[in-house]
Amino acid sequence: MIKVYSWPTPNGHKVHVMLEECGLRLGRDWEVFPVNIGAGDQFKPEFLAISPNNKIPALVDPDGPDGKPIALFESGAILLYLAAKTGKLLPKTDRLKFQVLQWLMFQMGGVGPMLGQAHHFRMYAPEKIGYAVDRYTNEAKRLYAVMDKQLASSKFIACNQYTVADVAIFPWLRSWENQGIDWADYPHLKKWFDLVGARPAVQRGVKVLADLRKPLTGDKERDILFGKTQYGQHGKR
Amino acid sequence: MIKVYSWPTPNGHKVHVMLEECGLRLGRDWEVFPVNIGAGDQFKPEFLAISPNNKIPALVDPDGPDGKPIALFESGAILLYLAAKTGKLLPKTDRLKFQVLQWLMFQMGGVGPMLGQAHHFRMYAPEKIGYAVDRYTNEAKRLYAVMDKQLASSKFIACNQYTVADVAIFPWLRSWENQGIDWADYPHLKKWFDLVGARPAVQRGVKVLADLRKPLTGDKERDILFGKTQYGQHGKR
Repeated sequence: MIKVYSWPTPNGHKVHVMLEECGLRLGRDWEVFPVNIGAGDQFKPEFLAISPNNKIPALVDPDGPDGKPIALFESGAILLYLAAKTGKLLPKTDRLKFQVLQWLMFQMGGVGPMLGQAHHFRMYAPEKIGYAVDRYTNEAKRLYAVMDKQLASSKFIACNQYTVADVAIFPWLRSWENQGIDWADYPHLKKWFDLVGARPAVQRGVKVLADLRKPLTGDKERDILFGKTQYGQHGKR
Repeated sequence: MIKVYSWPTPNGHKVHVMLEECGLRLGRDWEVFPVNIGAGDQFKPEFLAISPNNKIPALVDPDGPDGKPIALFESGAILLYLAAKTGKLLPKTDRLKFQVLQWLMFQMGGVGPMLGQAHHFRMYAPEKIGYAVDRYTNEAKRLYAVMDKQLASSKFIACNQYTVADVAIFPWLRSWENQGIDWADYPHLKKWFDLVGARPAVQRGVKVLADLRKPLTGDKERDILFGKTQYGQHGKR
């Protein structure tokens, strides 16, 4: 059974949704182990051994490419691995495949990190810093506009079929309110968002570990999440 | 001839280096068209047609996978495309390939965006915001520590061979001074940095368009680069 080390965040959801979309079922084909990133579980040696960047999600497949176990970190790589393993959600022709890869990279390098910064400065930072709030809210709106324009002429984000790029982007847009987004500005993207959100596998995926998510409360949790503690734990100054 | 639309930034360098590493030579196999991102060239309709996210680099290969032209954006996707086209810098076995993909994703989702934020708040932001400077300097140090640990037991970042993951990471580390890094803290990474930096193809790649790079001077250029203008030009509030 595939082991998934995860937490109910957008990067975790990407992998939960992908597994379900590939026809792998929680409890039958994969099991999930919560990594409480607010409590510092991501710095435990056993987790670092499979995810040296101390981030969720990570995956261990006992039945790897050569029949031997494989451990993987980085959600984008895990999505590509599951696509290769199951033959799902990544087109077979090179032209379409690279078209999908560029939108997957757009999620990995833009949508994920920048919406993450928007969440941080809009919701979690202990002080309200106007410059940073504006910077990342503007970037969120710019990214939504890029996707809206693309979806004006394409059913899904990379092409007319549903792919890993859609799986990767969707979970990040569920927190649109925290990103300062008004859906009225992005009608094509909203239509896509509703279409993807209605898929049964997506609905199953985003429910995984959902009961463990709670609002950020204490200073200690904040320090662990936002670098003061993790930095120290790496033993570097 | 392959057309590369680029600018002398780390993401541009990634593609310049990759082309040279794959045995493709500037002037013979590829040509470069500067996209002056300080002057707003990235918002011109002809550039947006191949790079809808208004970012460099982008590439057009007249001899695409099916013999027809292909246009690509996102440096990570371009690296994978060139690896597939030339058979270079991406291992053939699935196990090694996914090992490389996870470190390429680590660059795309972590090293690139977070060192980019460190540059912004340490060097370019019009006001010095201590909280943001600390946040991204700490993250830079954390990322350097992750790579240093990995390189303590691996010759290159993903495995014992030089791959697209090394090509992707190297250009971002050339600005280590701007990221608040002291190499003395990361001896394994420094050894790798010197090893990669000594490669002739790397030295050729980082020189491409280098004479066009100049310090950021005016407010208008700053506005274009950091979102005030681009945002408006997308026609969104």
